[in-house]
Amino acid sequence: MNKVIVLYRRPAGKPVPGDFKTNIEEIPIADNGEVLLKTRYVSVDPYLRGRMNDTDSYVAPFELDKPLQSGIIAEVIDSKHTQFKIGDMVLGNLSWKEYQVSDGVGLRIIPPDPEYITAYLGVLGMTGLTAYTGLTRIGKPKTGETLVVSGAAGAVGSIVGQIGKILGCRVVGLAGSEEKVELLTSRFHFDVAINYKTEPDLSAALKTACPNGVDIYFDNVGGSISDAVLNQINKYARVPVCGAISLYNDAAPAMGPYIQPVLVKKSALMHGFLVSDFADQFNEATVQLTAWLKAGKLTYHETIVEGFDHIPNAFIGLFEGRNEGKMIVKI
Amino acid sequence: MNKVIVLYRRPAGKPVPGDFKTNIEEIPIADNGEVLLKTRYVSVDPYLRGRMNDTDSYVAPFELDKPLQSGIIAEVIDSKHTQFKIGDMVLGNLSWKEYQVSDGVGLRIIPPDPEYITAYLGVLGMTGLTAYTGLTRIGKPKTGETLVVSGAAGAVGSIVGQIGKILGCRVVGLAGSEEKVELLTSRFHFDVAINYKTEPDLSAALKTACPNGVDIYFDNVGGSISDAVLNQINKYARVPVCGAISLYNDAAPAMGPYIQPVLVKKSALMHGFLVSDFADQFNEATVQLTAWLKAGKLTYHETIVEGFDHIPNAFIGLFEGRNEGKMIVKI
Repeated sequence: MNKVIVLYRRPAGKPVPGDFKTNIEEIPIADNGEVLLKTRYVSVDPYLRGRMNDTDSYVAPFELDKPLQSGIIAEVIDSKHTQFKIGDMVLGNLSWKEYQVSDGVGLRIIPPDPEYITAYLGVLGMTGLTAYTGLTRIGKPKTGETLVVSGAAGAVGSIVGQIGKILGCRVVGLAGSEEKVELLTSRFHFDVAINYKTEPDLSAALKTACPNGVDIYFDNVGGSISDAVLNQINKYARVPVCGAISLYNDAAPAMGPYIQPVLVKKSALMHGFLVSDFADQFNEATVQLTAWLKAGKLTYHETIVEGFDHIPNAFIGLFEGRNEGKMIVKI
Repeated sequence: MNKVIVLYRRPAGKPVPGDFKTNIEEIPIADNGEVLLKTRYVSVDPYLRGRMNDTDSYVAPFELDKPLQSGIIAEVIDSKHTQFKIGDMVLGNLSWKEYQVSDGVGLRIIPPDPEYITAYLGVLGMTGLTAYTGLTRIGKPKTGETLVVSGAAGAVGSIVGQIGKILGCRVVGLAGSEEKVELLTSRFHFDVAINYKTEPDLSAALKTACPNGVDIYFDNVGGSISDAVLNQINKYARVPVCGAISLYNDAAPAMGPYIQPVLVKKSALMHGFLVSDFADQFNEATVQLTAWLKAGKLTYHETIVEGFDHIPNAFIGLFEGRNEGKMIVKI
């Protein structure tokens, strides 16, 4: 039989296990023009939280009692489609089902390279493209500038910081545990990493870490951490706003100091974005990321949880800081 | 003798007359390479408030007991400078003095056209350049888009709205009195004008005024008015942040809802700017603004206060909404 995870209830604030439900269905059969897929790796990402609300967002909300979806690597186990053969590994925005059929639209065949396969959910997938496009198109880093990254040990943040180093920036990361902070400097080559949870004076720590101020702030978190960084931006600073994970679970909008006076004073730019805004750059970005990866200039970190039943918990864990790097569920 | 207005005390919150003091000095004499100037028209502008604080800003703060400065049109009444002759009208960032000498650096000779002379402090000066560059470089208006302007009856706002109309936008203005609202639609051709002070439900009024949402929000005010507009921006909206007059007098940073989630959801851009950021566009802008002005496509409105002694009160009046359009003191 076939397990399917559906949205049982819209989360109120932080998602909890009871918001999800597992249904049992029959395994479907591929018709002409279709493939039957077996799920291998499931990506869980903070942005999915937004789709669980029944509000206007950049993509349609998930429907209640319907399967959730995310980036998934699956194996073709039956094919009645001319472009796919049994054994192909494919990447797509697929449902949280053990088995599903697809007409192939939106599926991309990926090389079955055992060393890099999960990279297609991360550094060579949406995550890496988000980091690369947001940093280069909005952040426009120049050699010698200072880049601060929040959520720095997360999937996107850890890649942003590494690209910043490759491009010649001083890179400072903010993360929420000693393990993450250690990882940032030892593995991802950040110049300084600050644990915002234990640091008694975040502003002073940032000032020390950024003696020339902040030219680019790649923001994954929003909230009071971002307030501290935004107070130290330089003239003509650029702030790619990639996410606001600290604010996603709030029922009412959280309040903070107005940013407009800082933006005027510093002639600074804040620009929210989705990776899809920069689709015209995906080919260039993929070529560049792959080259850096193969040259050993770019490394990635994954938290891999095993078992289909653990998808909801892995997702919930994102909001508890339980991941280091990309959170992936291996089936 | 020569009257000179100095900063006597840094304002705490809203400026008051006691923050300024008038000194009496001798009228200076022009040396070789200098001109003696008689002040004719003084521009007072909200941004001067920022320079009255002793804090890091985009320009050096005014010094205590030193003359204040702003955009001034003056007449050359004596010249020992080869590039200026007696009777020339010049524009420059000059001191609040009845008479002053200058070495000519930064002075621009303007045509002594009686119809347009004060326009060089407004629509053909910094104000018009601010409106033109901020709207075109950051707002990037396209025909059929909806442009909302706050502080719409102010010097910059009224020009922004008119340029928006010339470029084919639907233009909605926010202002704080019935007279201003009336002026926006009758004289400046705004499609809709809303009195935010008397409107019981600003969000609903904006929704009615902007049936297709907001593509560009040219923000002169910040604060809760801006919150209401930012909640209705469209995907890929652009927000030139020109000023935050509602927040300039606050001692502690005012609080409002975090904007990051909206920016991410809408892939929207907020960009603070100073007119000097776009100096490369001044020639093009001046040619275009002059052409529109002479063709009767662009009109401007001034509040003219008479008398050197009234400069401080005219400045204070900006924060009480006492001006319609550009506030100018005629000497």
